[in-house]
Parts: sequence; structure tokens; C-alpha cells
Amino acid sequence: MFLKNAWYVACTPAEIDDKPLGRKICGESIVFYRGVDGVVAALEDFCPHRGAPLSLGRVIEGKLVCGYHGLEMGCDGKTIAMPGQRVRGFPAIRSYPVVERHGFIWVWPGDPQQADAARIPACHWADSPEWAFGGGMYHIACNYRLMVDNLMDLTHETYVHATSIGQKEIDETPSTTKTEGDEVITSRFMNGIEPPPFWKMALRGNHLPDDQRVDRWQICHFSPPSHVMIEVGVALEGHGGYEADAKVKASSIVVDFITPETETSMWYFWGMARNFNARDKALTAAIRDGQGKIFAEDLEMLERQQANLSAWPERQLLKLNIDAGGVQARRVIDRLIAAERVPAADGA
Amino acid sequence: MFLKNAWYVACTPAEIDDKPLGRKICGESIVFYRGVDGVVAALEDFCPHRGAPLSLGRVIEGKLVCGYHGLEMGCDGKTIAMPGQRVRGFPAIRSYPVVERHGFIWVWPGDPQQADAARIPACHWADSPEWAFGGGMYHIACNYRLMVDNLMDLTHETYVHATSIGQKEIDETPSTTKTEGDEVITSRFMNGIEPPPFWKMALRGNHLPDDQRVDRWQICHFSPPSHVMIEVGVALEGHGGYEADAKVKASSIVVDFITPETETSMWYFWGMARNFNARDKALTAAIRDGQGKIFAEDLEMLERQQANLSAWPERQLLKLNIDAGGVQARRVIDRLIAAERVPAADGA
Amino acid sequence: MFLKNAWYVACTPAEIDDKPLGRKICGESIVFYRGVDGVVAALEDFCPHRGAPLSLGRVIEGKLVCGYHGLEMGCDGKTIAMPGQRVRGFPAIRSYPVVERHGFIWVWPGDPQQADAARIPACHWADSPEWAFGGGMYHIACNYRLMVDNLMDLTHETYVHATSIGQKEIDETPSTTKTEGDEVITSRFMNGIEPPPFWKMALRGNHLPDDQRVDRWQICHFSPPSHVMIEVGVALEGHGGYEADAKVKASSIVVDFITPETETSMWYFWGMARNFNARDKALTAAIRDGQGKIFAEDLEMLERQQANLSAWPERQLLKLNIDAGGVQARRVIDRLIAAERVPAADGA
Repeated sequence: MFLKNAWYVACTPAEIDDKPLGRKICGESIVFYRGVDGVVAALEDFCPHRGAPLSLGRVIEGKLVCGYHGLEMGCDGKTIAMPGQRVRGFPAIRSYPVVERHGFIWVWPGDPQQADAARIPACHWADSPEWAFGGGMYHIACNYRLMVDNLMDLTHETYVHATSIGQKEIDETPSTTKTEGDEVITSRFMNGIEPPPFWKMALRGNHLPDDQRVDRWQICHFSPPSHVMIEVGVALEGHGGYEADAKVKASSIVVDFITPETETSMWYFWGMARNFNARDKALTAAIRDGQGKIFAEDLEMLERQQANLSAWPERQLLKLNIDAGGVQARRVIDRLIAAERVPAADGA
Repeated sequence: MFLKNAWYVACTPAEIDDKPLGRKICGESIVFYRGVDGVVAALEDFCPHRGAPLSLGRVIEGKLVCGYHGLEMGCDGKTIAMPGQRVRGFPAIRSYPVVERHGFIWVWPGDPQQADAARIPACHWADSPEWAFGGGMYHIACNYRLMVDNLMDLTHETYVHATSIGQKEIDETPSTTKTEGDEVITSRFMNGIEPPPFWKMALRGNHLPDDQRVDRWQICHFSPPSHVMIEVGVALEGHGGYEADAKVKASSIVVDFITPETETSMWYFWGMARNFNARDKALTAAIRDGQGKIFAEDLEMLERQQANLSAWPERQLLKLNIDAGGVQARRVIDRLIAAERVPAADGA
Repeated sequence: MFLKNAWYVACTPAEIDDKPLGRKICGESIVFYRGVDGVVAALEDFCPHRGAPLSLGRVIEGKLVCGYHGLEMGCDGKTIAMPGQRVRGFPAIRSYPVVERHGFIWVWPGDPQQADAARIPACHWADSPEWAFGGGMYHIACNYRLMVDNLMDLTHETYVHATSIGQKEIDETPSTTKTEGDEVITSRFMNGIEPPPFWKMALRGNHLPDDQRVDRWQICHFSPPSHVMIEVGVALEGHGGYEADAKVKASSIVVDFITPETETSMWYFWGMARNFNARDKALTAAIRDGQGKIFAEDLEMLERQQANLSAWPERQLLKLNIDAGGVQARRVIDRLIAAERVPAADGA
């Protein structure tokens, strides 16, 4: 079950630069392309003529031209023209609200009437010259909730990412979790520890020493439908940690946009935004490379976990304190899905 | 649903030269091989002993010997011998009417009593020294009807085969379609146009200039169960087009034998027969190479179209004028399948 | 259907030397590893915390540590510890009786109360310096009964293994089959024949001439659940064959432990034990290499046979005299499975 009335990251702009992109999102087969004036459009990936996928076609002067028999589709899902045909009676296909913002293409797979671009999450890091962003995308054969769980319980870093960001202090330091409206926040603060390899690299990247003890923090912010932003960083020990002056810390935001494909697969848009040394493109590339390797370590675990859960559907999982973030996030998701299914009594 | 009482192309002779061939046709798993005196035989691909596929065996002195325990099968589906066994009581397996003709192996997957080799389509081009033929075979994951549609509506050439045989005049020129008995014919005549690249090559192959305007024609002949022969060609402009003297034209027959494997897959035997420069083997190879590339362009479209139709089974497709050939062909197929399922009242 | 209350070979010790091994056996997903003091353990491959496969974890001081969040699992399926957690209330996972013996890891997928290590088959060859053993493992996509059939009717050697151990005399010489309790024995004795290539190699390996006629024997012993030991050998002609003095023969035991994975797949542990020239490691390697190639020849046949049987589930197979070994073995299996499903009336 997916929350349909929500903004999901569908793709990056680069994915539709040259040609249309077909991608299934929340069970909907959608074609994304740049229509009139380069404005992004999203339609059912189904030509009303003979059912060919429109994503195999081309964009010509802002019209999506079916690659099979040349039907010209408009961004609203209405056929504009077709050689030798009167198209007025052609059935329309569904168009999806879609917005390009913060360096991503966002789609709303639910009721278009409720789509409000103002509900696209703010990403201050995406639109500021003080910040740099690098990221990538993985397709993972697991339910999207498993990735939410993964990101809201970072004790897994100690085991899955032992050689990069994991360290035993993550396990040893309790986290606190709270739900504020639709947002769930899980925080952990570790003081006076040795920075693990990834953070040593980041310290050097910010021209700080990597051989000193640090204060480290992880603040995971879940927001619906399935976005997780994680404030992470280290500061030289004793300067205030999370609150320390920018000169003595290396901090960043782990950006995770999780987009369901089917009940057992998802698109994972990951990245890291940082506000130190933002113009250093080599550093951006190095961080993205390191982060890409780290997140790749999660893939087998998540896919094999999904296979186990599919094989044992009746089993109850434990809900420990470390799972509070995931549990509360699922609660928010479930509440919103339930609300989506019961239309308001006043018909609104 | 398939028409079972019909002749389908099963394979080419080369495919059974060295060893038996296992191939599923209209849902039937069949082994093809050369039996007594090299005459082709077709049997269920199932050894009556323990169910091994006979196609893994060998042919020895006209007998198909099972590769598992040596059962010797006759061309009529009756076991001839087996080491140490009396085979009289062995259950027979099904044998299929099969004929080698016109350079192909033809099989009749339905009621053997109704199989009449006279109903194998005439292919004058196959048996004449005035004609040359070159072709190939593709396995495609789509229902065979989608390929019939494809070949009976050549407006797709403009889009799918834009760089070889497509040109905008195909779109712009209406076609006419008629059903004559079980045959459906769709024709299009385009006069005074520039020949597209494939036809320029053919003109040169026939020692004709390739820089002049031509009259071009396409006459698609559907006949059951799912054969499509397309008369195609270009003549130097103003010499009568289709009726022009052979000296001023390059013409040929696109040969398409479409054989269902399952409801969502098929074997596509394609080729081109021409009656100009028939002894030029290099030209035959060049044409086959070009045609192979052109037909390969259809594969992804057809397979993705099938995937879309399987995902949206309830959707109605449009039936435009350009679709008349496919629509009428499906009508013929449906009528014959219905007739096949209702045995004649007199028991005949 | 599998016999659950039985010992199956799960893996070789080498497969769990470095890390846990996840393997499905009789439909059960099991993780095998060396626990306390290196003693092998077998558990459900499912972490009670969040369902991750424990086989992705590591063994630390005899505890299986989940690779996701560090849960420490004991060999009895009870959680020992987890960072920051009280684990007393954690649900236990299933542990399986498991024994290391005869160079294999044996598992009992059924009722642990009935598991008696004394019922692991005796393998005198495995524990004697007079004998050498070499073998390997194949995963095969067929029901385990098809492999039992295969090994209890060696007439297939003439066809499947024509270039190594097959010869026409196998077909021409009747076998005798008898059931003794739960064991089924099929025997064939061929006298005064030319040894096939594999046995010529074995004769040379035992410093015997390979250009003389021999007496050859094959005695297949099936025992539940699905083990087949085959006494095979050749003796120089006229010295008593199977009973001949060791100096004039080359004999060995073909070892086949067949372990179901699912209804249509299995793990095949094959090997050969010999008591001549037992210290010649090069000979052991040569025999294993030859045997590996021979058994690989069965794979396609068995998998394609399974595909045929799955496609034609209603077909009856023949039960010839040569099939008596397989037929009687299946009868034993069926009887034991039926008994397993009807608990004793006295509740024992």
C-alpha cells in the first residue's frame, strides 16, 4: 500500500534530457518528458491508439510523438494530432501533476485535484550557493518501508557499514525518537569518540585534523510519504557538537528520497548535501563515490530481508527502542493511507 | 487462442540438419527431425518412457532415439524398440502432420484428419530460378496478432523504421483495405516520391538510378492462420508504378510467416523474395542484412506493447482506418477459431 | 513432498569454513555455521528482530551475529544478546538437529525429538585410511525423485554418458531389483566386456592393464530419504568379478546424497570412494574431474525432463523392468512419508 496523494521524486532532470523516460511509480506506469518550453510532463505510458509505451517515442516541439504510429500526445493527456486522423474522439490518458524543483522531478501519483506544489518539501540545501550536493539512484527489490526502517535506525551502520561510517558507539548510545505531526525525528549524540574513516575524509575535506576525538551526531527526519533527511556530522571534541561553530566541524545532510515502484521494489534517490567547501567539486565527487559504496552495502541486506518477509508473511517482527523511528514512521504512513481511503464527509 | 487446424512454419530445414529440434508451436511442444529417407517428422517432445524430451536425443537410421534410455521412436509416434523391452504396449505419442515445402518445414498442430498439404500456401517465388529469397527468424515475446497488426499497418514504418524504409508519404497516403474470403488486402500507392534508403539500395542493386523520383507501392496480403505477404517496390516515376515494366522497377515480396508459440510469444520467420538480379548472392545477403536490422527495430516495440496490454487488459484499443487491415485479419482469425470449436452438425 | 524426519546432507564442511551458509532444504531456509568450539549449528535463516537472513551475518566467538543490527543468536535459536536490549522476551527461532560426520554436515529438517544421530548412514569409506574420497555438488532444477530414478537405472549411461562409462552391454544385461526393508538394491553384472574409457583410466590408476576384457558390476543401494550408494567396478576377466581379489580389480563406490531444496529443485552431492591407491591424490583429482564431467551430462536431461513433467502433469510414465529400482525406491519414500503424516496412535 502506497500513499498516493503525495509528492515523490520520480527522476533527475538528467534522466529526461535526451528522451522520454518510462518509470513505474506506486504501481503507475508513467512517462516523463520535457514538453512545451522544456517544462516537464508526466503521462500514463500507454498510447491510446494501440497501447504502445509512449516512452519509446520522441519529443518533437513539446509534443510526445508515439514511436509506433506517430500519434502526437499533449502534456494534458489529450491527443493533439495523428497523421491522417481526426483525434477529437480519442480517449484521453491520465496526466500526472509533476514539478521540477530542488534538482529533482517530482510526481503526484494520486488525485490531481489535491496536488499542491507547496507541499513539495523544502530543500534549502538545493538552492543555495553555500551548499553542494552529490547523489545517485539505486533500484532495490524491497518494499519502501524497509528502507525507511533502515534509515531511521542507524545502529545498522555498525554492522552493514563497519568499514566506513559504522562504529560501536552508535550501538552503545541510545537514540531518542519523537513524532511531531507527520514528522518523526530520531536523534543520537555521541561525544568524545574517534571519527570513523568516512568522517576522517570529510574532516580533511574541510581542512580539519582527522586524528582528534570528535563529537558526532545523527538526526533523522522522516516526513511523508517516505523522505528521510539525516543531519549528520562531527565536530572537534568539546566545541558544542551539533551546535559548534562551522569552523570546527564537518556536517552534512544525508538526503534520501524513497519512491515505491511496486509493493516489493523501490527507487532510492540518495545523496549528500554539505555546506563546507561547497565549491570543491573533487570533494563532492569523492563524497558521492564513498556514499555510493556505503549505500550499495545495504542492497543485498534489504533485498534478502524482503525475500525472507515474503516467504514468512505471518511472522511478527520485533519493535525495539531502536526501531522506534521506523515504527513511528510506519504509523504516520498508515494513518495517512487510511485517511486517503476515507474521503472527507463534506466531500472536500 | 490459436487456430489449430492450419499450417504454420515450424522451422527452416537448416535447423534440423544436424540434430532434432524442440520447438513449442501453438502451445504444443514438438520435436522436429529428419526420419526415414530424410523425410521430416514431427512428434510430441515427450518420451513415453519417463517423459524426457526426445529433442535431446539423436536420429539413427531414421529413428529418433531418446537420449536418456535409448527408446527408439518411429515417425508415427509409436515406439519401435527399446533395449531389453517389448514395446508393443507402450503408449503412442502424438505425431503431427508435417511437410517440407518452399524452403520451410510446415506443421499442422490441429486435427491430423483435416491436414491437407494442398492448403499450404503457394509460394511461387520459392520454387522459381527467377526469384531469390533471403530471410531469418526472430523469437518475440508478444501475441502473434500484434505482429499481424504491425504488418497490416505500414504507417509504423515512418516511425519505427525512419532511417531505412520509412517516409512521411506513407502516413500521408491513405490505404484501402478489403476482405476477400479469408484473405485481407491492404494497399497503398505513393507516386512521385523520393525513395528511402533501403529502396535506393535496391534500385542500385537492379542497376537503376537512385536519384530520381519513384512511384512506390505496398500491398499487404493477410491469409490465415497468420501469414502476411507484402508486395513492395518502387518504379521510376511515371512508368506505371506497380504495373511498370520490370526494367524500370525494383520490386519484391516481404515474406512473413508468423507462428504462435504461446499466448504471449511467437516465432517470426521473415524474409524477402525478389525477381530482379536473382543470381546476385551478395545482393541477397545485403538485402537480408538490411531487412534483419529493420525487423529488429520492431522487437522492442512489440514486446513492450505486449507488456502494456498484459498490464492493462481491460483497455479498449482504437480501430482507426489505418488499423483496418489488422482489424479485418483478426475478424477472419476469430471466425475461423470459432468455426474450429463448433464441429459440423453432420459430424464431418 | 519430502520425508522430513530424516538426515540429509546439507553441505560440506568447507562451505561453512569462513562464513555462515544459507541453504534451503526440504523447503526450510536454514543457516549453517560453526558455533561454540567449532561445532556446527543450524537455525532458521531469519533474525527475530527484523527478519534479515542470519546467513548474511558473521560468527563471533561461537555466536551468530546478525549482519543488520548485531543481534547475537545462540545455537539453540535463542537470542543471547543485542546491543542496548534486553533479549529475554525475544521469540526463539527454530534450531535444527545437525551433525558433522563422514566429511559432511547432516541436517534433520523434521521433528527434532525424533532426530537420532545413529540413523545417519554408515560410510565406512569416509573414515578409513584405506579409502580415498573425492566429490562435488550440483544444484539441479528437478524433483529429487528424478535423480533417484536416474541412479537406480544405469541404462541411461549408454546414452547420456556414451563416451565415458556407457557401453551397450549395460542395455543388454538385465538387472535384478529387490527391496529389503527400506533399502532397494538393483544389481547388474556384465562379464567379458571391454572396459569403457573411465574404467580404463581407473585400471591404469590401479596399475592394471587397460587392454584386457573385464567383468563389470553395478550394485545400486537406495536408502531413505534419498541416498544412493553404487558399488561399481571392473575385474580382469575370469577372476571372480565382484568377488575377485583386490589385486585384479578397480572398484569403488559412487556416493550420491540427494537433498531436496523445493519440489522442483535439489542439491546433488556426488562423489566416488575407492580403496585402491588411496594415497594417490592426483588420481583422486583425476577421478573427481572425470566424474564431475559425467554427472554434468545428466543436468540438462533432468532439468528438461522436469520441465516436461511439469507441463504434462497428468501423464503416466512407464514402469519397465529397468525402472524397478526407481519404482521401488519411490514406494519406500511414499510409505515413509505417509507414516510420517499419521502420528502413532499411542502418541509416541
